[in-house]
Amino acid sequence: MTVIKDGESVLLYLNERRKWLVEAREGREFHTHMGIVRLGEVIGKDFGSCVTSTLGAEFYLLFPSLCDRIRQVRRPTQILYDKDIGLCLYRLGVGPGSVVIEAGTGSGAMTGSLANIVRPDGHVYSYEIRQEFMETAKRNLEKMRLGEYVSFRNADARDGFEEKDVDAVFVDLGDPWLVMDPVHTALKGGRPVASFSPTVNQVEKVVEAMAKRFVDIETVECFVRSIRVEKGKTRPMSLMVGHTGYLTFGRKILEK
Amino acid sequence: MTVIKDGESVLLYLNERRKWLVEAREGREFHTHMGIVRLGEVIGKDFGSCVTSTLGAEFYLLFPSLCDRIRQVRRPTQILYDKDIGLCLYRLGVGPGSVVIEAGTGSGAMTGSLANIVRPDGHVYSYEIRQEFMETAKRNLEKMRLGEYVSFRNADARDGFEEKDVDAVFVDLGDPWLVMDPVHTALKGGRPVASFSPTVNQVEKVVEAMAKRFVDIETVECFVRSIRVEKGKTRPMSLMVGHTGYLTFGRKILEK
Amino acid sequence: MTVIKDGESVLLYLNERRKWLVEAREGREFHTHMGIVRLGEVIGKDFGSCVTSTLGAEFYLLFPSLCDRIRQVRRPTQILYDKDIGLCLYRLGVGPGSVVIEAGTGSGAMTGSLANIVRPDGHVYSYEIRQEFMETAKRNLEKMRLGEYVSFRNADARDGFEEKDVDAVFVDLGDPWLVMDPVHTALKGGRPVASFSPTVNQVEKVVEAMAKRFVDIETVECFVRSIRVEKGKTRPMSLMVGHTGYLTFGRKILEK
Amino acid sequence: MTVIKDGESVLLYLNERRKWLVEAREGREFHTHMGIVRLGEVIGKDFGSCVTSTLGAEFYLLFPSLCDRIRQVRRPTQILYDKDIGLCLYRLGVGPGSVVIEAGTGSGAMTGSLANIVRPDGHVYSYEIRQEFMETAKRNLEKMRLGEYVSFRNADARDGFEEKDVDAVFVDLGDPWLVMDPVHTALKGGRPVASFSPTVNQVEKVVEAMAKRFVDIETVECFVRSIRVEKGKTRPMSLMVGHTGYLTFGRKILEK
Repeated sequence: MTVIKDGESVLLYLNERRKWLVEAREGREFHTHMGIVRLGEVIGKDFGSCVTSTLGAEFYLLFPSLCDRIRQVRRPTQILYDKDIGLCLYRLGVGPGSVVIEAGTGSGAMTGSLANIVRPDGHVYSYEIRQEFMETAKRNLEKMRLGEYVSFRNADARDGFEEKDVDAVFVDLGDPWLVMDPVHTALKGGRPVASFSPTVNQVEKVVEAMAKRFVDIETVECFVRSIRVEKGKTRPMSLMVGHTGYLTFGRKILEK
Repeated sequence: MTVIKDGESVLLYLNERRKWLVEAREGREFHTHMGIVRLGEVIGKDFGSCVTSTLGAEFYLLFPSLCDRIRQVRRPTQILYDKDIGLCLYRLGVGPGSVVIEAGTGSGAMTGSLANIVRPDGHVYSYEIRQEFMETAKRNLEKMRLGEYVSFRNADARDGFEEKDVDAVFVDLGDPWLVMDPVHTALKGGRPVASFSPTVNQVEKVVEAMAKRFVDIETVECFVRSIRVEKGKTRPMSLMVGHTGYLTFGRKILEK
Repeated sequence: MTVIKDGESVLLYLNERRKWLVEAREGREFHTHMGIVRLGEVIGKDFGSCVTSTLGAEFYLLFPSLCDRIRQVRRPTQILYDKDIGLCLYRLGVGPGSVVIEAGTGSGAMTGSLANIVRPDGHVYSYEIRQEFMETAKRNLEKMRLGEYVSFRNADARDGFEEKDVDAVFVDLGDPWLVMDPVHTALKGGRPVASFSPTVNQVEKVVEAMAKRFVDIETVECFVRSIRVEKGKTRPMSLMVGHTGYLTFGRKILEK
Repeated sequence: MTVIKDGESVLLYLNERRKWLVEAREGREFHTHMGIVRLGEVIGKDFGSCVTSTLGAEFYLLFPSLCDRIRQVRRPTQILYDKDIGLCLYRLGVGPGSVVIEAGTGSGAMTGSLANIVRPDGHVYSYEIRQEFMETAKRNLEKMRLGEYVSFRNADARDGFEEKDVDAVFVDLGDPWLVMDPVHTALKGGRPVASFSPTVNQVEKVVEAMAKRFVDIETVECFVRSIRVEKGKTRPMSLMVGHTGYLTFGRKILEK
């Protein structure tokens, strides 16, 4: 059992489509269309237990994964989807201790995912040219309690990265082909880069830019479809996300 | 730059479809249809550099990610695909320090992926009823140098797990519905379980078994399609993997 | 050139998402958020030409295909999608002169598609147990000017079909497995049946029911994804239909 | 019942993956790995009945649909898939009586599909620049007994079409954008064109070429996945066709 402490984050669960990230806090209330949940009463309860709103609705107190936290971040920009982040982290081979550059912080969804996985000994260097995005991402990372694993750089990735000998680079920019030279300079030999782009045309350009000094280049798109499972009535969901973007992977070579 | 040492693993890259995990070792040779690569000559070179085979073919020396190592494991059983492992790790919220149970070690692909991500302070407890599978997986984990983060249990998961208060459980069994009670007992409150199953019928049963004491149950299938990117001739690949299995996620509640 | 006559159907086109099936008719008006189109002025114009609304918006006068007409039918029930109708017609091998039974008229989308393709010498016999659905479908077929190629039967398909020696049968019922015996009786030897069902469980049952006296049984699902093509910004659409239903095909054998 | 006559085509069915188009003919034999089938013995039997090979294997005598015939044509070029043909025929709105131009005959798969659906009063004009392809397609159409509904033109579609006022045009060329002017000239106002292309770049160019004098332009890709239905073990097939090509639809306007 793990008891919820004062100030701890909790995922308040009503049903599959209604869940909120809240903070257990004496005197605070959380208002929903199904009544008010008193967040002080949550303190001292076990994760997994149930509380009742003022209207009698049952809410479960779930432990928020990083994934839950990221879905709830403030997002001035479109954030990456689970499917893309998961595949990307895995294919990049990042893990505890990795040193990673991110070009294009955006709202910090990938930043947080990288920081979570490289901690405590690794580090993420995240570049963002738009100051206001960087500030929002910084605050988002603080809320995830991952801020100490990230150095934010309010700089143009196209001008190059300060870091050298990094283990992996993730690029989420509108013009990723323009940073392939800096990416090459910053990476250790034989190490991977991944680039996320919504359009086919961006993909063509980034692959062309990579082709000179990277090998094992592969572009993929990832789809996830939900299944509505109900005994005797199981069927895929009617609507699905048809496209987010393409992921292009490559690995640095020293000369070609 | 990172120099390849004696005994170190190297991903020998010829082209997108031809890459091999080899060991830099004095006096050893690696034979391919494109000639012999002398693995002693590799020592002292930088990752990312190029060697020439006896037939004049160029091979690049890439740094093997965990992902590369896993694809090359001995596999008495079908192994999980990147797309499923990546999504699963991310959705389970496992990270450095997590304590995780795996029910159904198989060839150890997921075991290695979990071990890599929970190290150095977390741990994986992996259950496998078939002794010979467990032994192969053990050897695979040793090769990945991740053995110390895993405790193998040659036991039937349906009889329950020794561990309590774990952060997440991953199930890859033919009859996952039969372990949902032990999974519930072993998990901390509000924490996630994921189950991988190839058939719709298994999914129906596992969802039914979960429904009693888990919430936020979702079943998804994940597709990945490769794009052949070539300037002016870009098109998706003709063949793709149409199905591996379904991933079902749920979260433990204390009572319902 | 083909001139639009009084009383003729026209597809009034504003943009990809806004098009309406209207009737050229003296004195009639069609109101849109972009102004009023006078439908009398359309008479005598060529298909493909442009008219201007009272608010100055340009509408093109397109020739409505059967497909356009079907999308616009009154639909008390969910109608089949283009992708499923197209594949089904083609795989059933129906063409001019075919005699076809439809079990489950619904709104008449498939009825119209079948009628259009078997005319003028073929015929469609369409069974619908719910009188009000049949009446709506009848009116829809009249509007498509295909009524003469269809005989509607307000009867329960499970009780059997009046027709014998038909060339193909299409089934769109909630319990298709219950009509496989009547389907077998009505079909010529070696001829095809197709059944449309939303759930996996229906598919399992219909395949089981078919297995006794049909061969070459195949179940497929069909996806269509739209691509937003724009020079330099081409990308698939973000949302797509993830599921409508499964199509199961089989062919009658005489004994097994 | 329909009795098989001398000279009639029969689909000899062993299992889902093994079926052959043969001709019932006195004295002829058909050799398979499961023994010899005497094709003279087939005459006089009913479609749907079963014959036994010299090795005791059972073969069913199925009625070949056009779709079966097309899959078996000689194919010097890649042929279109069911899914693409079905969707295309339906979206083009072709039916009995339609007059259609095809630019790029190829092996004649689409030619046959169009001919079958426009007969007996419609007609297909099929253009093919490579004489040898045209000859093969002609022979294929004769075998399908659809030759009389098609006029083959051994000419370059880019030079324009002889026909005017056609109901629909189907384009399957490597450079479809170069025929959009002739297509426009040949079509009746407000009528549809469809173009099939494997690459994204072709699609971009054809859409650009269409944009000037066509509206309601839409590009789609169509996927079909087979499901292995077995009671209690139902799952999608492991491999699927990931890509054949994109279908782009548009409709002629008179001026813009």
